[in-house]
Amino acid sequence: MDINCDMGESFALYSFGNDEAIMPYITHANVACGFHGSDPNHMARTVELARDNGVRVGAHVSLPDLSGFGRREMKMERGELLNIVLYQIGALTAFTKQAGTEISHIKPHGALYGMASRQEHIAEAVADAAGIYDLPVMGLPGTLHESVYRRRGIGFIAEFFVDLEYSDQGELVITRQHEAMDPEIASRRTRQAVADGALTTAGGKVLPVRADTICLHSDTPNSAEIAAAVRETLRSLDRE
Amino acid sequence: MDINCDMGESFALYSFGNDEAIMPYITHANVACGFHGSDPNHMARTVELARDNGVRVGAHVSLPDLSGFGRREMKMERGELLNIVLYQIGALTAFTKQAGTEISHIKPHGALYGMASRQEHIAEAVADAAGIYDLPVMGLPGTLHESVYRRRGIGFIAEFFVDLEYSDQGELVITRQHEAMDPEIASRRTRQAVADGALTTAGGKVLPVRADTICLHSDTPNSAEIAAAVRETLRSLDRE
Amino acid sequence: MDINCDMGESFALYSFGNDEAIMPYITHANVACGFHGSDPNHMARTVELARDNGVRVGAHVSLPDLSGFGRREMKMERGELLNIVLYQIGALTAFTKQAGTEISHIKPHGALYGMASRQEHIAEAVADAAGIYDLPVMGLPGTLHESVYRRRGIGFIAEFFVDLEYSDQGELVITRQHEAMDPEIASRRTRQAVADGALTTAGGKVLPVRADTICLHSDTPNSAEIAAAVRETLRSLDRE
Amino acid sequence: MDINCDMGESFALYSFGNDEAIMPYITHANVACGFHGSDPNHMARTVELARDNGVRVGAHVSLPDLSGFGRREMKMERGELLNIVLYQIGALTAFTKQAGTEISHIKPHGALYGMASRQEHIAEAVADAAGIYDLPVMGLPGTLHESVYRRRGIGFIAEFFVDLEYSDQGELVITRQHEAMDPEIASRRTRQAVADGALTTAGGKVLPVRADTICLHSDTPNSAEIAAAVRETLRSLDRE
Repeated sequence: MDINCDMGESFALYSFGNDEAIMPYITHANVACGFHGSDPNHMARTVELARDNGVRVGAHVSLPDLSGFGRREMKMERGELLNIVLYQIGALTAFTKQAGTEISHIKPHGALYGMASRQEHIAEAVADAAGIYDLPVMGLPGTLHESVYRRRGIGFIAEFFVDLEYSDQGELVITRQHEAMDPEIASRRTRQAVADGALTTAGGKVLPVRADTICLHSDTPNSAEIAAAVRETLRSLDRE
Repeated sequence: MDINCDMGESFALYSFGNDEAIMPYITHANVACGFHGSDPNHMARTVELARDNGVRVGAHVSLPDLSGFGRREMKMERGELLNIVLYQIGALTAFTKQAGTEISHIKPHGALYGMASRQEHIAEAVADAAGIYDLPVMGLPGTLHESVYRRRGIGFIAEFFVDLEYSDQGELVITRQHEAMDPEIASRRTRQAVADGALTTAGGKVLPVRADTICLHSDTPNSAEIAAAVRETLRSLDRE
Repeated sequence: MDINCDMGESFALYSFGNDEAIMPYITHANVACGFHGSDPNHMARTVELARDNGVRVGAHVSLPDLSGFGRREMKMERGELLNIVLYQIGALTAFTKQAGTEISHIKPHGALYGMASRQEHIAEAVADAAGIYDLPVMGLPGTLHESVYRRRGIGFIAEFFVDLEYSDQGELVITRQHEAMDPEIASRRTRQAVADGALTTAGGKVLPVRADTICLHSDTPNSAEIAAAVRETLRSLDRE
Repeated sequence: MDINCDMGESFALYSFGNDEAIMPYITHANVACGFHGSDPNHMARTVELARDNGVRVGAHVSLPDLSGFGRREMKMERGELLNIVLYQIGALTAFTKQAGTEISHIKPHGALYGMASRQEHIAEAVADAAGIYDLPVMGLPGTLHESVYRRRGIGFIAEFFVDLEYSDQGELVITRQHEAMDPEIASRRTRQAVADGALTTAGGKVLPVRADTICLHSDTPNSAEIAAAVRETLRSLDRE
């Protein structure tokens, strides 16, 4: 079971997240590409930091909405979105090239993630880009992420969000700002997802869940603690 | 003798230059990468148009100054400029990958071009990026472009600007807006540069000039006429 | 009957529309405020041009989407949209202050115009801003533009779009790019709207229409001709 | 003796500075206007916060360089800079209008501050904008700030930077990132400036200094402590 985290979302003089503290605990870093956060300096540094920690790097592609951190839905056509996604993946490859590594996956960010789970032409655009780069895409199982990517022959990486709530319908509750979370709860949710293949919704319902990777957010206030708790839980599950 | 032209500088709904009319006459298109002009849609279209015309594509990298079209100097450190240049090259590779082609060269745009000809750390930053991509750089012979790139073992492509004035000191006069030019003059300047290895300055002085490629600008009002005149002159020189 | 036109949408070195040719024919210029087009230089010039032609100036406020020309819908909360609209109105007042004039009205641009006609919290945000500035708002009669602004005691200016199609349901068909239009048709539509209080839809249906002002777009290819035709038609109707 | 501080420099989800903690100690807030930091939401909040603390608000105008936080010099013409400055002042007036207050002054930010102290056409452009708004400008005494503004009849507010170093030539050392500072040193520098009219340079030289206001930066790590120390020192000097 992998652990992925959104990284490199600092911008200019603005810090965001706690990348250095989290990097040791994760396996995949989804690196912002300048459309919702990050800039060339932060991308270069984040890719280096990932390499030095043996962490794989993915393109965390976004709608073009820096002032909204990519968390506002925008109406997009398939063709223009494909180009927007390609631009960001390409930009990130410059820094993996510089660091002597490669991109391992794509993950839509924020509002785009939600849109791709519900709007077919959006999922298709992501798949178009993934096909050109022959890269798998992280997404929410049971949504268009899974069905469209699989139909297109694109690798699909199912993820479980340890630090976000799910609705009783199994939908992810995406918020603009993330709240702190008790690391104990993160452990329990990790154990439940991995050992029982289940999650508990905000409304207390238990739903089945499939996951190849556990996602956490660097901008959750105590994100490094959560990362450590998830990592430790996965290790102890391995030992059991 | 090659002919290069800045291309793909349209942005959003805004048109710029006359790319379709010029493309048949040139050998190298310097494609804007979104920092002074262009956007993902226009980059994709321009790279396709170049491919369909058998024209090679270079990254026309700029300072981050969309509202100034990259024609205002900015104070830049070497490290941040390297990252800015890498980001743009990487972004463009997404579209050459999509089109099944490759980037053939790098050319600094506007104010960055002038800065690299005079400021050592700027030329070094361009060379840093070129080294990572193992690509040659177009620049002004006799300036830091030539000396720094050559010292670093970076390929240097000397260019002669057929549609810009040179000062009596041999320096290029870079303006924010370009004026129309009699195609006859473009022909004469081309012939003088290629056959005589000379140019006539704004002040009427004749200076020696070396060139591997002739540059013209798509935003000169009658740019397609100039391109046709230069191409025809080069052909007739070949026949002589 | 007034004539209004979107103006000042050029950006940086990019030209857009045909402001100088159209300005003599209109009564109200809706000036872009930098969020979908324009920049401080173009705003200053446009406000001066309007003053010199005796044309009143309104704030043509947009979603923050320069790369989409404000023609892509974005999910917006009321509070953040209010601030975005206020920022733009304020910015424009700097140039009317410089020119010795004042802002006369507000008009939402592009996707925001459509959103305000259908989403209550968006129309409320526009009304919030209009209330702070005590300015009337141009909008589409029979939609939330009219009902929300009127309920709030905000002046409402009903407009008829002479160069856009209406659906059989009376909804405006907003496109990203505008097509040329026979000036004869513009005349006929103007006459029909003013004399008969009617419009003919894309599907050939005749619907009632109320209008205080006739809107035309500067980026319709032959916009100056259309403006002249509308003006002349209004004059001849006055004489009848 | 007033105390001024740069405020409202947060952007989107990014926090910057410690505005709420500092506001109680200062008399003037220089509010970022979206060109180097801030956005409509943060401007609205900051202006409200200032009003609630009885703090006057100035327009902290910047070069258009969000990715460089306005701390990179750019070549600017007088006319375009005037428009850029006007745009920002105007934008800020929307939020003072909303809050029921008014702008009290203008202060150039970062690289623009340094440029205005040394380049005549830049100081003139700032004066042009100040003249249109009939507002005084904060600047460095003994530089073009003082001479140009005074010659133009613009109010000049001399400031002393308590948390930045001065060179032995009396020039301000402007850095991209600010270091923490012992509040004791801030007290001592305040006392020296106010009681003795002197400052001690980085090289240990004592130079005369004139000041109407003491400036501190919100992004100095312990800025609230420094603000409290300066305020307390000024109070005890008043009592002496």
